Amino acid sequence: MRMLTRRLFLASAAMAGWLSSKAALTNTPGALPTARKSGGMGLLDALSERRSTRLYSDRTIDDDILSTLLWCAFGVNRPESGYRTAPSWRSSMETDIYVADAGGVRKFDPVTQSAKSVLAQDIRGKASPQPFIGTAPTVLVYVADRFRMYEASEEEQIQSAHVDAAIIAQNVYLYCASVGLGTCLVGGADKSGLAQILDLPESQIVTFVQPVGYPQAG
Amino acid sequence: MRMLTRRLFLASAAMAGWLSSKAALTNTPGALPTARKSGGMGLLDALSERRSTRLYSDRTIDDDILSTLLWCAFGVNRPESGYRTAPSWRSSMETDIYVADAGGVRKFDPVTQSAKSVLAQDIRGKASPQPFIGTAPTVLVYVADRFRMYEASEEEQIQSAHVDAAIIAQNVYLYCASVGLGTCLVGGADKSGLAQILDLPESQIVTFVQPVGYPQAG
Repeated sequence: MRMLTRRLFLASAAMAGWLSSKAALTNTPGALPTARKSGGMGLLDALSERRSTRLYSDRTIDDDILSTLLWCAFGVNRPESGYRTAPSWRSSMETDIYVADAGGVRKFDPVTQSAKSVLAQDIRGKASPQPFIGTAPTVLVYVADRFRMYEASEEEQIQSAHVDAAIIAQNVYLYCASVGLGTCLVGGADKSGLAQILDLPESQIVTFVQPVGYPQAG
Repeated sequence: MRMLTRRLFLASAAMAGWLSSKAALTNTPGALPTARKSGGMGLLDALSERRSTRLYSDRTIDDDILSTLLWCAFGVNRPESGYRTAPSWRSSMETDIYVADAGGVRKFDPVTQSAKSVLAQDIRGKASPQPFIGTAPTVLVYVADRFRMYEASEEEQIQSAHVDAAIIAQNVYLYCASVGLGTCLVGGADKSGLAQILDLPESQIVTFVQPVGYPQAG
């Protein structure tokens, strides 16, 4: 009996491993495949390759890559405390990442490593007056909830929100460099337009947008 | 004769390799050892290890590590264009890094990978009202030259200067995580005090300070 239990356990563990990403996709709404959290290109190589890219091919980003990208960006790297891959103003973790692509907009939840749909509309072309941004297959929109920084003055909230999002964006830059993706940090987003489209409450502001895609050959 | 020339060439090349870091130290004032620009810990491992450290041991940072740290921070990663490991507002590259330690203050020059002495005074204890900062063996001071962002409004200059320095600081965070160093990004620097000590012209502002050191055991 114990032997049978053990065999069943091993079989189910193997099955779980085999199905891991598919299973994750069905268990939690918007669940992403398991993010890769170890290995990767050498840090110094990734820094050597870091650059801004503004011309993207049509190739879309699959959910395995997206999941790791979002974990790199602002994922939980110390589950015991919930702390993240990027620092933030007094650990207020005020930045939320929205992922806009042809299918709509999803909001990244770092705790469950999921990205639930919040809008079934392609908003990429509206993210910024700069038209190249709409040509990327995926556009990250950084939103800061100033309510989570209530101890700060409004001026400090706004500056720190921009600082914290930019740190996250550098994680994205380095991950992109490490897997052959291109990206670019864009300050000139249509911040109020995006806030309206995303129906953000008054405490929340858009700080930056960051297009991501495979560089156009040539 | 040709054989002798070739032998002399090979001998001198070997000698140059053998002496490379020492030679660099004597040729340019303040020259740093050659920075490491490839390999290193896997990016995803470095992101897993990223955290803020506020307790440092007495162990100092040797110049080999410091040189690579400064290159990671804001070094030249594309010599053909002079572009860097971190993006900046319209590529204005307005941030200069000052390195403060027990011996004084040096200013990093990314083009020559050197750090010339600018002050023979230990200013670490004056960098911030937070006393832990003075306990780190090395404190980086980020200074933005707003003159290099002359097209921007003053408000935009100040915000972008903070954003750009924080991106550099995240490179430092990741390099520290990859070699067992601890660090922390400090917004509450004594900005005007430091500007006075460093005798900065009016166009230049201190944005952040970042202590770096080996974490205290325990």
